[in-house]
Amino acid sequence: MYRKYFDPLDYNLSADFRLTKLSDLKGRGCKVPREVLHRLLEGLQTADKNGYGDGQHHQGILPESKPTPVVGIGLDSCVIPIRHGGLFLVQSTAFFYPLVDDPFVMGKIACANVLSDVYAMGAVEVDNMLMLLSTSNKMTDKERDTIMPLILQGFKECAEEAGTSVQGGQTVINPWLIVGGVATAVCTQNEIIIPENAIVGDVLVLTKPLGTQVAVNAHQWLENPDRWNRIKSVISEDDVRKAYQRAMNSMARLNKIGALLMHKYNAHACTDVTGFGLLGHAQNLAKHQKHDVSFVIHNLPIIAKMATISKACGNAFGLLQGTSAETSGGLLVVLPREQAAAYCKDIQAQEGYQAWIIGVVEKGGRTAKIIDKPRIIEVPAKDTEGELW
Amino acid sequence: MYRKYFDPLDYNLSADFRLTKLSDLKGRGCKVPREVLHRLLEGLQTADKNGYGDGQHHQGILPESKPTPVVGIGLDSCVIPIRHGGLFLVQSTAFFYPLVDDPFVMGKIACANVLSDVYAMGAVEVDNMLMLLSTSNKMTDKERDTIMPLILQGFKECAEEAGTSVQGGQTVINPWLIVGGVATAVCTQNEIIIPENAIVGDVLVLTKPLGTQVAVNAHQWLENPDRWNRIKSVISEDDVRKAYQRAMNSMARLNKIGALLMHKYNAHACTDVTGFGLLGHAQNLAKHQKHDVSFVIHNLPIIAKMATISKACGNAFGLLQGTSAETSGGLLVVLPREQAAAYCKDIQAQEGYQAWIIGVVEKGGRTAKIIDKPRIIEVPAKDTEGELW
Repeated sequence: MYRKYFDPLDYNLSADFRLTKLSDLKGRGCKVPREVLHRLLEGLQTADKNGYGDGQHHQGILPESKPTPVVGIGLDSCVIPIRHGGLFLVQSTAFFYPLVDDPFVMGKIACANVLSDVYAMGAVEVDNMLMLLSTSNKMTDKERDTIMPLILQGFKECAEEAGTSVQGGQTVINPWLIVGGVATAVCTQNEIIIPENAIVGDVLVLTKPLGTQVAVNAHQWLENPDRWNRIKSVISEDDVRKAYQRAMNSMARLNKIGALLMHKYNAHACTDVTGFGLLGHAQNLAKHQKHDVSFVIHNLPIIAKMATISKACGNAFGLLQGTSAETSGGLLVVLPREQAAAYCKDIQAQEGYQAWIIGVVEKGGRTAKIIDKPRIIEVPAKDTEGELW
Repeated sequence: MYRKYFDPLDYNLSADFRLTKLSDLKGRGCKVPREVLHRLLEGLQTADKNGYGDGQHHQGILPESKPTPVVGIGLDSCVIPIRHGGLFLVQSTAFFYPLVDDPFVMGKIACANVLSDVYAMGAVEVDNMLMLLSTSNKMTDKERDTIMPLILQGFKECAEEAGTSVQGGQTVINPWLIVGGVATAVCTQNEIIIPENAIVGDVLVLTKPLGTQVAVNAHQWLENPDRWNRIKSVISEDDVRKAYQRAMNSMARLNKIGALLMHKYNAHACTDVTGFGLLGHAQNLAKHQKHDVSFVIHNLPIIAKMATISKACGNAFGLLQGTSAETSGGLLVVLPREQAAAYCKDIQAQEGYQAWIIGVVEKGGRTAKIIDKPRIIEVPAKDTEGELW
């Protein structure tokens, strides 16, 4: 029922070919540390000195002659008024090093993550995508000619699933393999949800489970005896493979339905959860609120057994602290209390996936926190999940 | 009068710090070879099997449910009709490894090159730019914190000079330093010049001299005795430095005025000249013409002495064959014969730079060629050029 593992032998590649070996960094690691990024971007900014989001940087304040963007630094999309017809440009870009070994799935994940930032603004009609690729100069010609078309295919299929298409891009050669892109939507004002209207009494909903980075790492440790020996007493190989499949499924899944339903259920704010983890993105979102609110998180839905691994590794990932990086994570949506259950139920009905109420909006100073001893919701891999492909 | 050379000592960096050492590839070298790119992108295409432009790939034919882009593969921008108000999205992306040692200038060059593809479509009002950056993991923290803000600053100033601004992007860590971006313009139809209307009797105008790659390489050879010994009998060190300055100036210069004037003088088609050289881009443009035409190039304006170097290197660059890569090269504009001189004169009046009539449009099979023994126009570096900065 699961997606068949990508097997290099099926493509006449060496049995030990691993996409994830084509970079020394994975997931969170590819990001420039937050404080370094902050320093780097100081030159770019004109006034606003807020946080910078997830390695992605979207600027807030502009020279006076320029239209002021509606969404500022710290969130991962830019929303800019344009010259024509009261329209807005919503754009996001991101690129990634391989974090799973299946090139087709890696292409889907990259595309889903690029789109996710635009969906977090409520924009669901994407006009164009560009693809940014680099082949790795460590690949043989045979590897390159096999792997790159699969990545492209995954990216393209994901874009089509999103109802858009890839109309441009660039491909270069680099030591590490890169896959990424740009999503662009031109929207009317009512197609966008400016993420700043959380009020006391709202609740927080999360649309995908946490733990993708832990799952991806644990899966790599199956081939690394030193690492595997440290966790094998707490988890079986089969559970690791199930979690890895669940993570791949989750990362390749679009946040489009979640974004569409934000309009139906009157969402007050939203962000997607990626490189800075649940708490990091919750904090960024809190900072941008108009009202004196803070976000308090009570529940952590986590891919089954990943909390156990995280604890066995001495919390090295920060998973229970909300700081573990996610790739193509869920939407964190602020909804009126009376709408939240219906929002979750609608996602379940349309997509067959659960969403969870994970916290509340209280009076506060535009911060976010996770309570001591949050409830861990173990999210199992279902047999039906392989059907995504 | 020239821009002062970037001196690492001015920033307390090691005297031998060279930005261009942060990649093993430069200029043309960073591109995936054309035939490899073609293979890679086969999976992305649905029908059109034309050429792919300059490592940048812009798609032609789409599933029927999608709006058909106006400009197809082989040119470096995409032009796509959007849902709103008869508007079009014009986008381009490109990224580069360092090819000059001055980080501020490198930022300007990258920005000018990204914008150039949009200008080639006649679109001069750019709504947004994204910046794509990677720091190199070979840099020390000190080098990173010194160099990256200068690159950012150059990129940003160039965007402002273009009347737009940088509202987003992403920064990662990579073995090689990367600087690039995305330019997006939302345009009405009459703001775009679809590059397909060349007719017999038109002439070809080029707005910047050729030879940037030769100049950049020759400058690096000043620090490589083996290489320098091969060319020092035909050129002085001073001439190399002048050519390098001329090349930096030229690459950092926007093609915006050239694009604006295309409307005034009724241009029939245009492309910019980058990675595939003058002839490569002329051929791509010829392929896209509606009428049975071919482009014949008689004159090659080349940065002074660069033709000499190219000959001394056994034509390794392909400069006289029109295949030498250019970075942020000029516009190759197809104009009605009676308008071309006025177009060139207007550029000279507004910018202080020459443009040249370099060829004619004849009846033919949508190809382009350079005549045997073309006239070489030696383009000197002027003392006033340093004023660009």
